[in-house]
Amino acid sequence: MKKIKMGIIGVGRLGYEHACNIANRVPACELVAVADANQARAKEVAEELGAKYCASPEELCADPEVEAVAIITNTASHVDMIEIAMNAGKHVLCEKPLAETVEKCKKAEAIVEAHPELIFQLGFMRRYDHSYEVAKKKIQRGDIGDIILVRCYSQDPISIIEGTLEYAPRSGGQFIDMSIHDIDLIRWLTESEPAKLWAVGGCYEFKQYKDWDDGDNVSCLMQMENDIMAFFYAGRAAAHGSAVETEIIGTRGTLRIASVPTDSLVEVMSEHGVCRECYQDFITRWHGAYIREMEVFCENIEKKQAATPNVYDGTKSTAIAFRCKESFLKNELLPMEY
Amino acid sequence: MKKIKMGIIGVGRLGYEHACNIANRVPACELVAVADANQARAKEVAEELGAKYCASPEELCADPEVEAVAIITNTASHVDMIEIAMNAGKHVLCEKPLAETVEKCKKAEAIVEAHPELIFQLGFMRRYDHSYEVAKKKIQRGDIGDIILVRCYSQDPISIIEGTLEYAPRSGGQFIDMSIHDIDLIRWLTESEPAKLWAVGGCYEFKQYKDWDDGDNVSCLMQMENDIMAFFYAGRAAAHGSAVETEIIGTRGTLRIASVPTDSLVEVMSEHGVCRECYQDFITRWHGAYIREMEVFCENIEKKQAATPNVYDGTKSTAIAFRCKESFLKNELLPMEY
Amino acid sequence: MKKIKMGIIGVGRLGYEHACNIANRVPACELVAVADANQARAKEVAEELGAKYCASPEELCADPEVEAVAIITNTASHVDMIEIAMNAGKHVLCEKPLAETVEKCKKAEAIVEAHPELIFQLGFMRRYDHSYEVAKKKIQRGDIGDIILVRCYSQDPISIIEGTLEYAPRSGGQFIDMSIHDIDLIRWLTESEPAKLWAVGGCYEFKQYKDWDDGDNVSCLMQMENDIMAFFYAGRAAAHGSAVETEIIGTRGTLRIASVPTDSLVEVMSEHGVCRECYQDFITRWHGAYIREMEVFCENIEKKQAATPNVYDGTKSTAIAFRCKESFLKNELLPMEY
Amino acid sequence: MKKIKMGIIGVGRLGYEHACNIANRVPACELVAVADANQARAKEVAEELGAKYCASPEELCADPEVEAVAIITNTASHVDMIEIAMNAGKHVLCEKPLAETVEKCKKAEAIVEAHPELIFQLGFMRRYDHSYEVAKKKIQRGDIGDIILVRCYSQDPISIIEGTLEYAPRSGGQFIDMSIHDIDLIRWLTESEPAKLWAVGGCYEFKQYKDWDDGDNVSCLMQMENDIMAFFYAGRAAAHGSAVETEIIGTRGTLRIASVPTDSLVEVMSEHGVCRECYQDFITRWHGAYIREMEVFCENIEKKQAATPNVYDGTKSTAIAFRCKESFLKNELLPMEY
Repeated sequence: MKKIKMGIIGVGRLGYEHACNIANRVPACELVAVADANQARAKEVAEELGAKYCASPEELCADPEVEAVAIITNTASHVDMIEIAMNAGKHVLCEKPLAETVEKCKKAEAIVEAHPELIFQLGFMRRYDHSYEVAKKKIQRGDIGDIILVRCYSQDPISIIEGTLEYAPRSGGQFIDMSIHDIDLIRWLTESEPAKLWAVGGCYEFKQYKDWDDGDNVSCLMQMENDIMAFFYAGRAAAHGSAVETEIIGTRGTLRIASVPTDSLVEVMSEHGVCRECYQDFITRWHGAYIREMEVFCENIEKKQAATPNVYDGTKSTAIAFRCKESFLKNELLPMEY
Repeated sequence: MKKIKMGIIGVGRLGYEHACNIANRVPACELVAVADANQARAKEVAEELGAKYCASPEELCADPEVEAVAIITNTASHVDMIEIAMNAGKHVLCEKPLAETVEKCKKAEAIVEAHPELIFQLGFMRRYDHSYEVAKKKIQRGDIGDIILVRCYSQDPISIIEGTLEYAPRSGGQFIDMSIHDIDLIRWLTESEPAKLWAVGGCYEFKQYKDWDDGDNVSCLMQMENDIMAFFYAGRAAAHGSAVETEIIGTRGTLRIASVPTDSLVEVMSEHGVCRECYQDFITRWHGAYIREMEVFCENIEKKQAATPNVYDGTKSTAIAFRCKESFLKNELLPMEY
Repeated sequence: MKKIKMGIIGVGRLGYEHACNIANRVPACELVAVADANQARAKEVAEELGAKYCASPEELCADPEVEAVAIITNTASHVDMIEIAMNAGKHVLCEKPLAETVEKCKKAEAIVEAHPELIFQLGFMRRYDHSYEVAKKKIQRGDIGDIILVRCYSQDPISIIEGTLEYAPRSGGQFIDMSIHDIDLIRWLTESEPAKLWAVGGCYEFKQYKDWDDGDNVSCLMQMENDIMAFFYAGRAAAHGSAVETEIIGTRGTLRIASVPTDSLVEVMSEHGVCRECYQDFITRWHGAYIREMEVFCENIEKKQAATPNVYDGTKSTAIAFRCKESFLKNELLPMEY
Repeated sequence: MKKIKMGIIGVGRLGYEHACNIANRVPACELVAVADANQARAKEVAEELGAKYCASPEELCADPEVEAVAIITNTASHVDMIEIAMNAGKHVLCEKPLAETVEKCKKAEAIVEAHPELIFQLGFMRRYDHSYEVAKKKIQRGDIGDIILVRCYSQDPISIIEGTLEYAPRSGGQFIDMSIHDIDLIRWLTESEPAKLWAVGGCYEFKQYKDWDDGDNVSCLMQMENDIMAFFYAGRAAAHGSAVETEIIGTRGTLRIASVPTDSLVEVMSEHGVCRECYQDFITRWHGAYIREMEVFCENIEKKQAATPNVYDGTKSTAIAFRCKESFLKNELLPMEY
């Protein structure tokens, strides 16, 4: 069994998680090279995980041993990284969102299209979470009939609010940074695109979001082209935890994913009643999804099969997120157009 | 302890439930008179519950023994019944919705205003359900901080679909007949009025709803005047049961009511997994709420205190429901105006 | 509809609940007479509920208007009250336990047997709780196949510990006072009698129970005559609430009743996770069961049909409870013998 | 980072899982050698996972590259394998149960004691399951006060009943094969040993268990030396799934682990109500525990620290399981003695 030799660009908190997955948790690949703008950190991770340290993305991508590259850098640099990697002939797994503007997404499309022999996969990992895979399979099997409504919630926990607020100004805002995940889920689950949408929200607690043309809590109702209704909500300070919940109401049944967001099977009976403690950070929540996403990426490389989510999923989700933001700022119902 | 002597006009399925509550389950009142368009049924119920049979609403309201009247007739006759009863000096509890047009609601307002000495209470019983009372108390106590979003679902079960479809053409449609409950809950929970709204939906399974300018499944996003977001969804054929669920997301916590809609504490472990069986009809679901609503009505009469929901709640919920329907039919974002 | 005229002897906390049920919540009966060792309280309740005050049980039972009597006095007086009432020709509903010794139970049997024309029903109300009725029906329908194991928990909440401790010395102890309910449930569910049993436990927190030859927490494993296994546990200070849970494991499925003991459909998302708040007192928990038990008592009178639980259920449960206590004190496995 | 070089003896279903964990999911080790009585399978797995094939346990243990050995063979061969491996100077992780007789366990103790420089760890993996770790931590932190009662259930699913029945005659029986896990959990959670025990049960559906001096469903009540009560139940044909549930009742609170045994966050609303689908096999259930157990084993080797569960845990759990069986066969309450 030949392992795919992988390099990683960006080993911040999430990047390090990916590096560990590549090195130790995904049998089909191994970590051979590490680069990061923070050179010291790159060296440290490289040493810890038994990979080469590379001084730059270019150096990493120039390494002939590297077959595939995971890009876990800041959003603004994604497309540049994709360009460097793919022009060097490497398969690419790039974190979401694809880019911070639709124009840049289009540029990414062009790069990917110029390399039809290479696999490009976008990091909407929720699609690869066990529970989402179970739900998708049930839908495809017809268990719930035709889809009527998809509801998606994404909330960060209050327990990490300081980091959340610090990151907020450069995050791109709720729609681009957070709701884009739910936009991807909605497109994936409904197999359709939004026709019209209206986004609302405001600053319910953290007034500073106003300064960033954003809300601390927002929501959006969408009418999909195939008439399915979709509603999403995003918040930054849920009392109970990192809460991503999705519901799919169909004509024959309903599926609900993670209405109690926990991986612990422990119930606590205390003076608060019967309680389930929840995830407090997204990396724990999506631990399995990040591994599975990487496994699928390897399988796609192995079998030379088209990956999903792909570059167009990146462009579309970005375009929709921007349209949501526009609707939110104008407080208008907007048709979607790409 | 003097019991309030009550008459009831309308003893169909729900009316009979009310009659039994008045006669046997609410200590503060007793049933003394029964009228119904179906004379035979009126006689039968009167005899069963030990009350007088009255040949007409007029006869019932002319009876000097009757102090208060419960009106559980078809919507179109509500305002006429209110007029007869209040002009005869009776306190009134009237089933929702107040009327089938806003104009008629206004007429009801005038009648009620002409009788400031009489109690008028509207039958939005959900406000008096134990779980809703618990939730409201927690909100008022500040447990969840400020409200950000209210989400309301109302679904009839597939198990009664034949009756649902038969009744549909004369029901007034999803917004007027069913979502009006959620509109009332949203107003009650947010203590605000919708500023703008957009309603969507369609005929996902039962195409006949199209003929009635309606959808079998609809939803609506509202922006309240105080900026709270509100979303409601109504369906007619939930696989699992009579499912009314409400969620209130606040800045300090979240409350969810009836995400598993059952009054049974039984869990069934079977080949389907661990299952909770759900309510199959709304009268069972709201059994306690109908009793509690009547108790509160009696208390209001006793203490001569203003009742809620009141006649204006009836007008406003009706006006909003119509605006939702207009938005749904035009597929437009509409400002609310009363 | 003729209502059964009922008297009540004993209107303490639970007696008052029964009095209200008879007076106001059970259509088939009405409250006509009240007696209590506390004369002032008897007068007060009689006045409040529109019934006669009687100076003594004898006076109440001598009243020819009274057709049936509810006995909710202290356990030690039960058999005397039964004797007075039945000798006066009244139907009797008597609270559990039947008596504080097996000998007295036998005396009660003789009294009941001397009045075959009168209904005698014992107040093991759990059998009449909605969820238990649902479970029993499923078992009878064969949903879970043959029963293998019954597990019963009964816990008082820590929130009422002061009252619990005060009452403890004269309660009869865990087995006689509390576990007797689970002994009755086990007999009812398994339709069998214990063949052998071993009871254990101790004073885990409240050492004073030692002085009363009791434990604050006890449990018992029983082998039923039909080989079904039964396990019960009783505690006095559950952190989360008044927690009565029952599980029936069968060859085709399992039923679990009240693993989360609450009548509220509210979930609270807070820093403690996703929580369900629980019952804090047994009268709230069994509100519906007390009503239903009275309805069934009336129906039994009406139709002259044998009531369950009956006087023999009282004797047997008492005998078993004593045998459990003996096993606990001797720390020996004991055969059951009546 | 030097990886511990590990060999595996036994690559049946569970052995293969371990082999994959060693090879691919536990960073601290790597798989270098594979042996199995089924030579063809050993070759296949060795090739798939990039390890050496060894013709015998002796050959594998003689390999100087091998530092540690995982023994996943049939129970009867465990002690021989331990002897071969430890005498060859290898650290050992051995699957549970330690052996099929107490005498053999004692022999294992002697072998382990003869090699104080080597790590010996026994494969009671439940201790390393995430939820059990969470619960243990809460207990150690004092969250639930002092432990009063531990309840353990272990049930195989009906979905695999054919394999269960085929394996049953040579499994050692419910107590030795299955309940031994719960016996280990009870010892681990209570930090005590049983003082007295009584085991009951029978053949409720599969009468053939009688021929093997066994029951298809059994249970046992234990009194621990520190007075904690412990109850366990084992079944072979749960309708809902592979159901291992543990409850710890304390003086300040209660913990319940896996009352709904599933790793999926999906709720299915269907005609059966609101359902959670459950694990159907134990390897899926304990996937994470098997990995974590191996991680801890590696850490123990690395840091030369004593492992738990250890060889004495193996002897004690075996002795208790046999005592349970004896109690079950004699239907007697037995004191425990080692």
